[in-house]
Amino acid sequence: MYKLVLLRHGESVWNLENRFTGWTNVELTEQGRTEARRAGQQLREAGFAFDIAYTSVLKRANHTLWLALAELDREWIQVEHSWRLNERHYGALQGLNKAETAAEYGEAQVIAWRRSYDVPPPPLADGDERLAIGDARYADLAPGEFPRAECLKDTVERFLPYWHDTIAPTIRAGKSTLIVAHGNSLRALVKYLDDLSDEAIVDLNIPTGIPLVYELDAELKPTAHYYLGDEAAIAEAIAGVAKQGRAA
Amino acid sequence: MYKLVLLRHGESVWNLENRFTGWTNVELTEQGRTEARRAGQQLREAGFAFDIAYTSVLKRANHTLWLALAELDREWIQVEHSWRLNERHYGALQGLNKAETAAEYGEAQVIAWRRSYDVPPPPLADGDERLAIGDARYADLAPGEFPRAECLKDTVERFLPYWHDTIAPTIRAGKSTLIVAHGNSLRALVKYLDDLSDEAIVDLNIPTGIPLVYELDAELKPTAHYYLGDEAAIAEAIAGVAKQGRAA
Repeated sequence: MYKLVLLRHGESVWNLENRFTGWTNVELTEQGRTEARRAGQQLREAGFAFDIAYTSVLKRANHTLWLALAELDREWIQVEHSWRLNERHYGALQGLNKAETAAEYGEAQVIAWRRSYDVPPPPLADGDERLAIGDARYADLAPGEFPRAECLKDTVERFLPYWHDTIAPTIRAGKSTLIVAHGNSLRALVKYLDDLSDEAIVDLNIPTGIPLVYELDAELKPTAHYYLGDEAAIAEAIAGVAKQGRAA
Repeated sequence: MYKLVLLRHGESVWNLENRFTGWTNVELTEQGRTEARRAGQQLREAGFAFDIAYTSVLKRANHTLWLALAELDREWIQVEHSWRLNERHYGALQGLNKAETAAEYGEAQVIAWRRSYDVPPPPLADGDERLAIGDARYADLAPGEFPRAECLKDTVERFLPYWHDTIAPTIRAGKSTLIVAHGNSLRALVKYLDDLSDEAIVDLNIPTGIPLVYELDAELKPTAHYYLGDEAAIAEAIAGVAKQGRAA
């Protein structure tokens, strides 16, 4: 009935440095730009001709989208941005690498945060320079709504209203739709679409830069889903995310 | 009261080869990409924080916009595309270089086309592969409306409805607005804003990649206009367009 494509942004500077990124607005690496172009080429070869794209307000997703659209010869389509598609907000962990986090909070705590669905990391304090209140890209977020830290459950809860109110009606209207977002905002969608348990979603890894196609029936229930591209490369990419120990 | 910024796309592959481009969807050159980034840097240094951008459906303008927005840290703003902001359609001249055009039509005729406001070049014939009817980016253009060739007057007439219906109300609503377009669609706007004669607009050259700021009063009448950047570089760029003998 419908095909929906999800694409996680290509490798970012902080993916490479293995830092918790969250809402920090970091650039793609050259490898990330290459992944984005390759995703666009794969989508073109598979015959996708998108009418509309949804993305976050973070540049690693926006640049991934642009590079893919250029390969698709679709620079001119409608693009909608929302903070609700942003990565999970990692609170006070943002900017720390894995070793720094373990040193500060202990290995066991880090594993608990990583493996849990509903335990948020420590929140950003008032006055923390990482708190982007006042940034124009968040003008539609009241100061009190601004997240200080999110567990995956929080990300699901702020993503789903955007899905129901904005994206789903567009798909039902027959528009060919692409979503370019982040490891955890895409997990939020996959959890909802595939009706996964809180435990199952924590174990699900979405690799960067590989288009994930969902075939949906008239009620937007999935009838199939698959990654585009070479199977061995996809398996390696998924294993890479799992080994990295965090998805964002 | 308001500031509006106009930006002509950076150098394209066919600017460099001195070919009539029109609606042909050519890429920027590396120099063109550099110009676009520099324009974004100049706008950032001048303190511009755009809320919305308007551009054509041609990639040389879209890529220029993206490169500038990345420098401005404004990837997330609303972008509206319209064929009404496209370059003038050069009809059967599209793809020919200056020497080929002179050989086929004679030097005097080329000068007449170049210097006139209301004499269109020869139209594309039915079945010409350069006629992009059926291209999804022109889905809102009825086949009978599709231009076969335009004089500058035609470009003015198809651009102005978009200005009056879409762009002007946005500016009046207080949104900081950027237009990234083409030599002749920007000339169309400048002719209207500055109330220039048909003769005066033919002599006016807009260089690639240099932001042109218009200050407008409450009725959107210009009170001042100026290019951003180094004055000598601007004068050289304007002279370069004039010498090239055509603006698109």
